[in-house]
Amino acid sequence: MEIAEPLRVVIEELSKLPSIGRKSAQRLALHLVKKERQDLEELIKSLIELKDNIKFCSQCFNISANEICNICTNPKRDSSLICVVEEASDVIAIENTNEFSGRYHVLGGVLSPLAGIGVEDLKMKELILRLKNDEVKEIILALNPNTEGETTSLYLAKLLKPLNVRITRLARGLPIGGDLEFTDEATIGRAVLNRIDI
Amino acid sequence: MEIAEPLRVVIEELSKLPSIGRKSAQRLALHLVKKERQDLEELIKSLIELKDNIKFCSQCFNISANEICNICTNPKRDSSLICVVEEASDVIAIENTNEFSGRYHVLGGVLSPLAGIGVEDLKMKELILRLKNDEVKEIILALNPNTEGETTSLYLAKLLKPLNVRITRLARGLPIGGDLEFTDEATIGRAVLNRIDI
Repeated sequence: MEIAEPLRVVIEELSKLPSIGRKSAQRLALHLVKKERQDLEELIKSLIELKDNIKFCSQCFNISANEICNICTNPKRDSSLICVVEEASDVIAIENTNEFSGRYHVLGGVLSPLAGIGVEDLKMKELILRLKNDEVKEIILALNPNTEGETTSLYLAKLLKPLNVRITRLARGLPIGGDLEFTDEATIGRAVLNRIDI
Repeated sequence: MEIAEPLRVVIEELSKLPSIGRKSAQRLALHLVKKERQDLEELIKSLIELKDNIKFCSQCFNISANEICNICTNPKRDSSLICVVEEASDVIAIENTNEFSGRYHVLGGVLSPLAGIGVEDLKMKELILRLKNDEVKEIILALNPNTEGETTSLYLAKLLKPLNVRITRLARGLPIGGDLEFTDEATIGRAVLNRIDI
């Protein structure tokens, strides 16, 4: 197969991205070449901007354009409420709900002995430091509802207990708009246990 | 929602690409930021290379890194055989079959009165010029097997008839209404082998 070298390299680079297969990469590369030269230029510009200017907030470890992120510096956000998440993508997911006005703490993962991720690999020490410095009233543990997330939540709850702060975790139950018939047993079971008065 | 500006811009730019929705764009951008700084650098480098060095072959109008593309300059490719395709992506699709050793001619589309694409918008004059200059024995019309592709094939066949050249089209092993770019290699390869006279 003979294909122009710069095109081949871009296809290869795009194929490395998650959930982009070879055919998709090919279509994207050809799209950029064929029709939308301006799109290509803007994409390059934005990626360079990202590479040069993005860092991690030194307080909450969320992705940030500055030393301290917009959320940590925003005086309107409740600094007494910290939501602990695994990854920066979870911050975006929660921000999209518009239901949370506190601040975040990005752990950078969860405890996972199999993957060799231990306490030192996560930003736990930094969380405790924040609790000692700021006046924090409540910590919401918003880790993923799977085995590793639950284990990490329990570990954190134990770790934070002596610090005299309210510790909560996200409610487990039926997803809104879901269908009882198609929901797994574990979720329905938890929803039954955690039923609330109307 | 508060999100770092450079990240927001990259997500927006990625969302403009075909078949990349907002959530996918978000996942891609976070992937580039979080783990694979080197991937990000290599991706930027490859895109700049693409932007600066890619052009269209002045002979066949395929995507090329040079004035004349690799296929047109390769002495091992049969210059008496020209395969006419709609888009550069079709060249890649046919090259992937390894069934074709001739050269290409990229029309840049098909006749489409509804979309306002007429004879002057396609590289037809350039094709006829090639036939007059080179010793071409056969033209394979490899346009998409849909109404517009068929119409354009018939038009081209009529146009080329006086030039005393064998005109063929791909065998109808291709699924009608399908798209060349998305057809598997085996089917395209078979269609090249079974091409028939018009």
